[in-house]
Amino acid sequence: MLKLYYAPGSCALASHIALQEAGASFSAERLDFKSNQQNSPEYLAINPKGRVPSLVTDRGVLTETPAMLAFIAQSFPLAKLAPLDDAFAFAQVQAFNSYLCSTVHVAHAHKGRGYRWAAEENSFADMKRKVPETMGACFALIERNMLKGPWVMGDTYTVCDPYLFTLSGWLEGDSVDISTLPKVADHRKRMSERPAVRKVVEEQS
Amino acid sequence: MLKLYYAPGSCALASHIALQEAGASFSAERLDFKSNQQNSPEYLAINPKGRVPSLVTDRGVLTETPAMLAFIAQSFPLAKLAPLDDAFAFAQVQAFNSYLCSTVHVAHAHKGRGYRWAAEENSFADMKRKVPETMGACFALIERNMLKGPWVMGDTYTVCDPYLFTLSGWLEGDSVDISTLPKVADHRKRMSERPAVRKVVEEQS
Repeated sequence: MLKLYYAPGSCALASHIALQEAGASFSAERLDFKSNQQNSPEYLAINPKGRVPSLVTDRGVLTETPAMLAFIAQSFPLAKLAPLDDAFAFAQVQAFNSYLCSTVHVAHAHKGRGYRWAAEENSFADMKRKVPETMGACFALIERNMLKGPWVMGDTYTVCDPYLFTLSGWLEGDSVDISTLPKVADHRKRMSERPAVRKVVEEQS
Repeated sequence: MLKLYYAPGSCALASHIALQEAGASFSAERLDFKSNQQNSPEYLAINPKGRVPSLVTDRGVLTETPAMLAFIAQSFPLAKLAPLDDAFAFAQVQAFNSYLCSTVHVAHAHKGRGYRWAAEENSFADMKRKVPETMGACFALIERNMLKGPWVMGDTYTVCDPYLFTLSGWLEGDSVDISTLPKVADHRKRMSERPAVRKVVEEQS
């Protein structure tokens, strides 16, 4: 059986929702970041990066949200969570998820994790001040050029949707006014109404 | 026919090599970052992010290296650039590429593009000073836990290899001593000897 390691408020929410949408048989194990559980020897043996999510499978451990989302879509094809028989359409899904992990998540991380890329308190404060601007710019691009509506890829729900929902959930804390992003706001509302999303959000709360 | 937009020294090298290895019919168009060509109206109409690489296809434009690499592997299956019939093994390829785009490339970018995440010169200098440490830590993890050898995924060459080759080419400029990373150094040497790599490196130089 699959086992997902997650922490509340982290990007692991995307994979958690995708597993639920897929109808997968899985367990979810919560890590406590406040007690630094992600850097315990036990967890580092599972994921030497000391991050979440990790997905333990019969074949080994998978990490990195875009890879896990594609794996879930491919492993549960009946759930139709990605266009598996169309290399171009599949690449569009992957490009969206890749943008979220390499640009949007990274922009957000500069609010509280500046120590990853700098050493001085002044730099951390400077980074933190810029987050509303960078996250605002990322989501303006998503609103204008990427989110086809009602779902990310248009009429069909894919693994892009739980990932976008996860990151758009950070906007309020990052001081980006979601009312300036009507398509993103509508997407959040639609997602919140899905049974799989409700179930996972409740479990993580 | 496929058309790749690239800039010398950028991560577009990975997709360029992959296209060459795949035996794809493609053209490569160089952008001049010094004259800010990536932000020209003509290029922004192709890729509104103002970044490289972009791959123009008959169906539309693809961006984001991990998505393009998987697309190339899936579009040219005879080149066997990814384990296309094994969801777990494919996810391992994707997880590696996702780590490179979201963590390693981002660590490197703090050397010269600190303005993406901060506003003050002092912060840029602070970020720049930390790059040898962060890139060193990323590549120590790759050396110890990821690069199976001789290729990233073991005995079989995949799209992970041109991507690793691209980013390991930044180590010297980032003041990371590659002699402390014998598997990565061996990988660079093996890659440099491949005809496809030689051809693309010469074309981009």
